[in-house]
Amino acid sequence: MHFEDLIVGQTASMSKTITETDIVLFAGLTGDFNPLHVDKVAAAGSVFGERIAHGMLIASLLCPVLGLRLPGPGTIHLQQSLRFRRPVRIGDTIEAVVEIVELIDEKARVRLNTYCRNQEGEVVTVGEALVQVPRAEAPRGA
Amino acid sequence: MHFEDLIVGQTASMSKTITETDIVLFAGLTGDFNPLHVDKVAAAGSVFGERIAHGMLIASLLCPVLGLRLPGPGTIHLQQSLRFRRPVRIGDTIEAVVEIVELIDEKARVRLNTYCRNQEGEVVTVGEALVQVPRAEAPRGA
Amino acid sequence: MHFEDLIVGQTASMSKTITETDIVLFAGLTGDFNPLHVDKVAAAGSVFGERIAHGMLIASLLCPVLGLRLPGPGTIHLQQSLRFRRPVRIGDTIEAVVEIVELIDEKARVRLNTYCRNQEGEVVTVGEALVQVPRAEAPRGA
Amino acid sequence: MHFEDLIVGQTASMSKTITETDIVLFAGLTGDFNPLHVDKVAAAGSVFGERIAHGMLIASLLCPVLGLRLPGPGTIHLQQSLRFRRPVRIGDTIEAVVEIVELIDEKARVRLNTYCRNQEGEVVTVGEALVQVPRAEAPRGA
Repeated sequence: MHFEDLIVGQTASMSKTITETDIVLFAGLTGDFNPLHVDKVAAAGSVFGERIAHGMLIASLLCPVLGLRLPGPGTIHLQQSLRFRRPVRIGDTIEAVVEIVELIDEKARVRLNTYCRNQEGEVVTVGEALVQVPRAEAPRGA
Repeated sequence: MHFEDLIVGQTASMSKTITETDIVLFAGLTGDFNPLHVDKVAAAGSVFGERIAHGMLIASLLCPVLGLRLPGPGTIHLQQSLRFRRPVRIGDTIEAVVEIVELIDEKARVRLNTYCRNQEGEVVTVGEALVQVPRAEAPRGA
Repeated sequence: MHFEDLIVGQTASMSKTITETDIVLFAGLTGDFNPLHVDKVAAAGSVFGERIAHGMLIASLLCPVLGLRLPGPGTIHLQQSLRFRRPVRIGDTIEAVVEIVELIDEKARVRLNTYCRNQEGEVVTVGEALVQVPRAEAPRGA
Repeated sequence: MHFEDLIVGQTASMSKTITETDIVLFAGLTGDFNPLHVDKVAAAGSVFGERIAHGMLIASLLCPVLGLRLPGPGTIHLQQSLRFRRPVRIGDTIEAVVEIVELIDEKARVRLNTYCRNQEGEVVTVGEALVQVPRAEAPRGA
């Protein structure tokens, strides 16, 4: 959407079940072979009791919401803060949610609350995004 | 390392060249099919002139540095802030760097400057991490 | 083939062009983020001058030849020796070749020369395999 | 580490749980579509009773240990012998272990015992590696 179409309080989300495959592939992309993520035996002996997903994998689910839904195409992600609150386990279903909290007219920027919650409604990751959005009169770019 | 072994100013890093494969796989993991990342034609018409990597993919390279090198095994990632400053293109080589800036003794927490720079030395992502680290006397967990 | 069908001197092979994707995925599977494989800048400064493929990735091309062609289905891979002689670069086309050199009747075992050569005919990996092969009278298993 | 820093008896390891995803991706990389690895039905009728991992996938876990930990960066893998002793099943957690057994001063080479064991401590793959290691006075290369 264009900056002019946005309203404080608007929300959007998407959901995905986190699989062992997601963790294996994310470990492979980033090199993060932390035993908590890739070693079932070590993870069983940890405080979490089993393998958990990489926190940045979960937080990354916020990006398609920002870029494809709200504000949507043309959005440029400027800043993101994240607090990793709870572990995500294999089989958890995560909903990534964004909500507009501030429209900054001068630079066509938007501040959003961003969080991920699991199938129990527990927030696993929470933070804030700052994005820039195209104006109606401007060419949209990509 | 244990909390007691850490010193303000310590740094660690790892490097990886970002390939088209990385972008395709990250898009698949997250569902972030933003045309800027997966559509060569649309990206060519954008302000960037070509496909760029997902900012969170680049930021995710910080995690193996925190979890495997400094502070290393046993580290729990509590918070991360990110500013996405410059685009990363296919073929760019990104070094993810962390540097200890504060040791918070009370809770065995550590604050680190975290940034990613490209082969030209330009910072593409910058922010701060807050992590918790096992103490020497404590069992290490995973 | 059954043990009784095999003749010293028989050969089989398969070929594949090694792509950047192969290297990225193999690094992801194994955690081998050696800069020689995943960091274009560091590899350019190394003795090889560019990124090279993981030696075990190249050697692994021998396995489908043994298991699917010669001796083929039912083969059990018992031993493998490998000498890594030359680097393999992105874009090189590797032919994995096996040749029967000894039939050990007592245990239905077969010894094979195994090597991988590039598009210039240069041997990049060489070694020997020892495998066990089903007999004609025996049930084939998988 | 530099050749001068190494001591006979030093060991290093890393662990990873082998998932169906790993087997699927390794089959795709190598073309080793042996039914024992990719066909659940055929594998159920085999002597193993279920799909097993490719032996070379398991053996490949030795490489990041050699190249990133011991001896670590700058190591050149010259030779590797492998004996495949036991099958690895989906869900097994494999520890890849290397131990220095000989330092060959003349050429700065190192011989290591290399093996992979499962979560029961059973050795599934065993062999020997010969590597070359940079000397302290020499430039490190990559």
